[in-house]
Amino acid sequence: MPGGESQQYPVDSVNRVKRLAERGRYDKATVHQLLDAAMLCHVAYIVDGQPYCTPTLFWREDDRVYWHGSNSSRMLRNLSVGEPVCLTVTHFDSIVLARCGFNHSADYRSVMVFGHAKKVDDVAEKTRALRMMVDRFFPGRTAQLRQSTPQEINATTVLAMDIERASAKIRAKGVSDDDEDYALPIYAEKIPVHQVLGKAEPCPRLPAGVSRPAHLDGYRDGRPLEEAVAEAHRAVYPAS
Amino acid sequence: MPGGESQQYPVDSVNRVKRLAERGRYDKATVHQLLDAAMLCHVAYIVDGQPYCTPTLFWREDDRVYWHGSNSSRMLRNLSVGEPVCLTVTHFDSIVLARCGFNHSADYRSVMVFGHAKKVDDVAEKTRALRMMVDRFFPGRTAQLRQSTPQEINATTVLAMDIERASAKIRAKGVSDDDEDYALPIYAEKIPVHQVLGKAEPCPRLPAGVSRPAHLDGYRDGRPLEEAVAEAHRAVYPAS
Repeated sequence: MPGGESQQYPVDSVNRVKRLAERGRYDKATVHQLLDAAMLCHVAYIVDGQPYCTPTLFWREDDRVYWHGSNSSRMLRNLSVGEPVCLTVTHFDSIVLARCGFNHSADYRSVMVFGHAKKVDDVAEKTRALRMMVDRFFPGRTAQLRQSTPQEINATTVLAMDIERASAKIRAKGVSDDDEDYALPIYAEKIPVHQVLGKAEPCPRLPAGVSRPAHLDGYRDGRPLEEAVAEAHRAVYPAS
Repeated sequence: MPGGESQQYPVDSVNRVKRLAERGRYDKATVHQLLDAAMLCHVAYIVDGQPYCTPTLFWREDDRVYWHGSNSSRMLRNLSVGEPVCLTVTHFDSIVLARCGFNHSADYRSVMVFGHAKKVDDVAEKTRALRMMVDRFFPGRTAQLRQSTPQEINATTVLAMDIERASAKIRAKGVSDDDEDYALPIYAEKIPVHQVLGKAEPCPRLPAGVSRPAHLDGYRDGRPLEEAVAEAHRAVYPAS
């Protein structure tokens, strides 16, 4: 576990939370918890001086994050040589309506991790990473699938990035107005926002007798996505 | 409406969708629809050669996007001088479980817009923009609030960015396996993902007799956030 001996990511000018510094966290427990509760991240990178922000699926293993895609993607072709990256996860928790425009806000939990992305070239490690891309979310699923062909593995690029720096930022206080504004006859509230799973839709072309496997039990209608995702991570990486 | 005479954003090497090009769209109707259905975006920008990816609230007006924050934020201090930006919105629609690892996927609708962010310095335009930051989501709300003080307006930076290029990317096909795999006894499904509003929580310090105003009617328990947000945009910018 690279860097695992330290319980906090290093803080410097790159990752220090500047605005509302009291919202900033650098401890690994917080950073990892926010990463592991997500399936989707946004990756910022630079091509020819132009920043890009690309949404992609990802997962964490120890102090490393992984994502993947087609060999032909702009992001993956440009990042494979060790370019700097910022990978961000945002959990949007509520809309905050205050008594003045200035105090309108949102409750959220976000995390930015910084490092240099590198292509996974070793075939055994790449094959393992592609298995975990599925099994990290659906524990044990790969063993029940049609196995990947060498062509499929060749057509995919897997990127790994050691987390060199990280910062989490959390706002969770709902309505917070100036003291003198509370007496005003103005309506204020917090509206929670939830990202939830819907009712699963089985493929219409399933052969008779094929039923939903147990590794999908956590993905239940109405459940918050982050609960299912975090639960799967704990099952697959109990010590991570 | 700058650029409004054209129905499509220009396409070149910066914004052309390379991977799965059939998923790419450049028409303004699609780009605007995806932007206007969101409250949150991720902004990619560069500071001293390091890319950053910051989540923030934003809104669109004609061919321009706006966002704001504290004067002291890293993003806003560095972007105010016209730096290149990529602003991305992602609607995550479903998890796609296929019969092999390679065909696992997600249905999503994403849009990337490119331009150069500029600080809004003119006080009248800045005041108008700060009003729209609230009213674009909650039509008419600002008129019912305690009005902003000059100090509050001074403490806030508003950024505006004309959309120079844009691309949308949509996957909406659920499970899509190789032809020969459909006969295999392997379970496949699509799990919808919804971002929905919860039950609003009134501020516990409301004076007696202050009730929820009509401009919040669209924000109902259980409704998809994107429906409420898109409806408000249509009400505020009917011709946009």
